[in-house]
Amino acid sequence: MPRHRETLRVMWADTDASGRIYFAAIFRWVEFLETGLFRSIGSELNKTGHFPRVHVEADYRLPLGFDDEVEMEMWVDKIGTKSLTYKWEGRHNGEVAFGGSHTVVYLAPDGVSAPIPDRERALFDPSS
Amino acid sequence: MPRHRETLRVMWADTDASGRIYFAAIFRWVEFLETGLFRSIGSELNKTGHFPRVHVEADYRLPLGFDDEVEMEMWVDKIGTKSLTYKWEGRHNGEVAFGGSHTVVYLAPDGVSAPIPDRERALFDPSS
Amino acid sequence: MPRHRETLRVMWADTDASGRIYFAAIFRWVEFLETGLFRSIGSELNKTGHFPRVHVEADYRLPLGFDDEVEMEMWVDKIGTKSLTYKWEGRHNGEVAFGGSHTVVYLAPDGVSAPIPDRERALFDPSS
Amino acid sequence: MPRHRETLRVMWADTDASGRIYFAAIFRWVEFLETGLFRSIGSELNKTGHFPRVHVEADYRLPLGFDDEVEMEMWVDKIGTKSLTYKWEGRHNGEVAFGGSHTVVYLAPDGVSAPIPDRERALFDPSS
Repeated sequence: MPRHRETLRVMWADTDASGRIYFAAIFRWVEFLETGLFRSIGSELNKTGHFPRVHVEADYRLPLGFDDEVEMEMWVDKIGTKSLTYKWEGRHNGEVAFGGSHTVVYLAPDGVSAPIPDRERALFDPSS
Repeated sequence: MPRHRETLRVMWADTDASGRIYFAAIFRWVEFLETGLFRSIGSELNKTGHFPRVHVEADYRLPLGFDDEVEMEMWVDKIGTKSLTYKWEGRHNGEVAFGGSHTVVYLAPDGVSAPIPDRERALFDPSS
Repeated sequence: MPRHRETLRVMWADTDASGRIYFAAIFRWVEFLETGLFRSIGSELNKTGHFPRVHVEADYRLPLGFDDEVEMEMWVDKIGTKSLTYKWEGRHNGEVAFGGSHTVVYLAPDGVSAPIPDRERALFDPSS
Repeated sequence: MPRHRETLRVMWADTDASGRIYFAAIFRWVEFLETGLFRSIGSELNKTGHFPRVHVEADYRLPLGFDDEVEMEMWVDKIGTKSLTYKWEGRHNGEVAFGGSHTVVYLAPDGVSAPIPDRERALFDPSS
């Protein structure tokens, strides 16, 4: 599966009184990339079911300021029976500003944890 | 009905690169007061049904900085058959920093607009 | 000045437990359009100075759900000596889902309220 | 240093269309506890300088719903020359709903990374 990429900009709402981006602002971008990734592979499993996060981690290397452009990419690092682990990275002017990963578990339409259906597994499989 | 009051502080997340509070941060406080008001009058109508907003407006008079304390109050200004209009105000060091109002309509547990039940009307009635 | 337009989608983070968009989520879009409008007319006045809001109001007509597409537009309705009033509207499938307006005042780089510089006035002038 | 504790509730704004809390909502609580911890030990180093995050991680074990009460606690796990690592945990009805940690670095008033001043070190030291 190819990496999913989006170009984003730091919104004014994303900044804080340090004059830089607020750390948690990147988690909206993480979600934006994840939703875009589903759309790009043609899966609607994020609409018929849910993928709550069970783990998330992030490292911050460079500050970002208002309206700074960020090239972000996300890819599936591991696919389990019922879970997906994503990795992601944001670059500004070619340098890594932040990176991280998160793991989600699949909840079927009835809200119960379930194996990811085979059709979707094939779409997400990082080895395909 | 008495006015509902809460003392709040500007969180770091609520600030922006101007060094002051971001305008939309007060809408979380508006919700916080509204939820507190339901609790204080003993109504659970905000849990069995929903009260989506149909109108909101706010005026900003003074900037607020990180960790500034705000005394906020909210009261029901008008009660319609299916709607409630709240007014609210936030003060810092005795001066009005912002004020506004919002109108909500009642959606019954089935998600359909409905008259506010009599028991709840009595609790909210600003003339009682 | 032409209207500024952007196509947006409701993010998962923008929804609430009603299954629909949270009312305050549109204020990020308002900011997104405002920033885009500055870029489109070639003004950097929002970077050298600030434009804090002094008034904002919104009307909500239709609920929006996760990933719903919104065609949003914003335009300058009035230009004062030191202030700008914007109007905006969001449409889903051709119907108005929400609309509103907000007024900002110009703060020069030193943080003090000041007349909007002539070069910028010409760019923003709704009659031009 | 004693653990810092606060009792919080899930706001409506913190929920998403799953009917449960949105994962990133806990990061506001993390900040709320951190600010409260500074206040409780009598340090204003978070106002004279900044403590940007360089790492954050969280594990989610139980879903939380609107208005659910959470007992949250935070403590300093490690203190470096220029950094602090916090750990934190949120419980609902006695069960751990989520936990995590984050590391911040100290930026002096001039915005440059610097050793945490001795007076503050003593206040934060987990072994004291």
